[in-house]
Amino acid sequence: MKQPDMELVGVVKTKPDYVARYAVSRGIPLYAPSDRLEAFQEKRVPVEGSLEDLLGKVDVVVDATPGGMGAKYKPLYEKYGVKAIFQGGEKADVAEVSFNTLCNYEEALGRRSVRVVSCNTTGLLRSICSLSRIARIRRIRATIVRRAADPKEVKRGPVNAIVPNPARLPSHHALDVKTVLPWLDIATAAVVVPTTLMHVHVVVAELEQQVSREDVVSAFEQTPRILLADADTGLASTADLVEYARDLGRKRYDIPELVIWLDSVAVLNDKEVIWMQAVHQESIVVPENIDAIRAVMETAKSAEETMSITDKTLGITHGRIP
Amino acid sequence: MKQPDMELVGVVKTKPDYVARYAVSRGIPLYAPSDRLEAFQEKRVPVEGSLEDLLGKVDVVVDATPGGMGAKYKPLYEKYGVKAIFQGGEKADVAEVSFNTLCNYEEALGRRSVRVVSCNTTGLLRSICSLSRIARIRRIRATIVRRAADPKEVKRGPVNAIVPNPARLPSHHALDVKTVLPWLDIATAAVVVPTTLMHVHVVVAELEQQVSREDVVSAFEQTPRILLADADTGLASTADLVEYARDLGRKRYDIPELVIWLDSVAVLNDKEVIWMQAVHQESIVVPENIDAIRAVMETAKSAEETMSITDKTLGITHGRIP
Repeated sequence: MKQPDMELVGVVKTKPDYVARYAVSRGIPLYAPSDRLEAFQEKRVPVEGSLEDLLGKVDVVVDATPGGMGAKYKPLYEKYGVKAIFQGGEKADVAEVSFNTLCNYEEALGRRSVRVVSCNTTGLLRSICSLSRIARIRRIRATIVRRAADPKEVKRGPVNAIVPNPARLPSHHALDVKTVLPWLDIATAAVVVPTTLMHVHVVVAELEQQVSREDVVSAFEQTPRILLADADTGLASTADLVEYARDLGRKRYDIPELVIWLDSVAVLNDKEVIWMQAVHQESIVVPENIDAIRAVMETAKSAEETMSITDKTLGITHGRIP
Repeated sequence: MKQPDMELVGVVKTKPDYVARYAVSRGIPLYAPSDRLEAFQEKRVPVEGSLEDLLGKVDVVVDATPGGMGAKYKPLYEKYGVKAIFQGGEKADVAEVSFNTLCNYEEALGRRSVRVVSCNTTGLLRSICSLSRIARIRRIRATIVRRAADPKEVKRGPVNAIVPNPARLPSHHALDVKTVLPWLDIATAAVVVPTTLMHVHVVVAELEQQVSREDVVSAFEQTPRILLADADTGLASTADLVEYARDLGRKRYDIPELVIWLDSVAVLNDKEVIWMQAVHQESIVVPENIDAIRAVMETAKSAEETMSITDKTLGITHGRIP
């Protein structure tokens, strides 16, 4: 709705819950799968028509169904000749290309289907592709400390444990990064911890050439959608970052930017860079989904072009947090 | 009290709390600093005498005071000619040598003072020194996911956040490992998470020579005080490990062993090993403290000798959890 070159034709919901009612209250046309229409009528939530009705009216569908459901809907999108943006919960083969704006926007131009990789993978790709602008990367080793649940997910845990997830190493996150950067030597390990706010990554990158800490900080500073937080100013945890987003008045306290702790960036042995970064799992892929629409419709020819529109309309920033 | 070659002469408490009462109920002679004796009398907790009285009767003191206090008591121990074992909360220069049984037992033989490194450092040293028996280690990169508080610490947090601790990299844990293994190229990063049970480490070791996964698993299996847990059998988190220790009937559910997840051990590019391990912060340094007493008193000449006594008397095991 905020994009000047796009029209939101409708949204599809399977349940007449408060989210569906909220969409209606905002004047957004609501649709539902044919076999769910009755449930909406019973609850008196007005629906414009079926999913199929909507597919007859649109150029692109952004599939935000739960992981694995996108693959089931894919034949329907193809039947109606609608381009599809899938999410990272789907297997990579659901789409013609896995996608991150900074890393491979051009590869998605004109495609029929694109998969926006998951929140953790998007976070890794942002900083890796930023760093790869100043030095060739020999390998990446990263630990992912995952939030246990999103704030509204009351049935998920753990309440008091650290859970290797998966216990088998390396974790699938590395494979997911390679769907976008197949040349990269990357291994990842992930644990789940009892928090809801953001993921945190510890990343070690070994480079082919020497860099200084200043080079690295400068590269991160100049990259769109990366913020640098100074722990010394009080931005010392994921809770502080969320508090800052709330103070900024951001809707839903969204932080679509990748946040890198400035203090954490260090260069070891001249060719090795280590840093810590935080990923807001709920919002980091939102701008990439919008960019993916422009890619498949070829309404922006470059990553820079689409990012300048998306980031301006959504208030997404970069550089040091003052 | 369980060691056949040692006598517990007394314990020193500063407060007449339930822990002091428990010691008395177990028949352990209780002592207190001179300026605290009155507080014990008021609460009718019987005390045998002052700290100075006790120092006149012992060969070794195990200083378990809060971090930094050991350095303040050190001159008193020296005045009484008592050997001292300090903990990892003290700076390294508090003692003649920093200590881990597996890594450098012989260096502590006959010393006047020894510092048993912290729980996280002890966990790192156990697996690193185990691995170094099969291959020379080129470098270690480790992420430490720290528990926020011990179970009884009700005033500590975070409740819902991931906290880089410290935000500046590399973290001090690497320096602490180097107090025992000064030749090692090691860097660490640590975050605190809302859990009380155990720490978890993700360790990446680069070796000078090729190894197989079987070599690594075998080395870990054969090392005292290392347990290998199979996540597929349900030992899939720190909570599961603690539940297992409770099922075993272990007092305080102590897990003085380092626990390595068998599933996590992987070899990358022939010369790189990655694994995940869990550290029970409350108990992992207990056996090392007992060994340190034997080292300074020279009542065991080798690590193997002291470990065989300590581990048998405390029920400490190694190898795969069945």
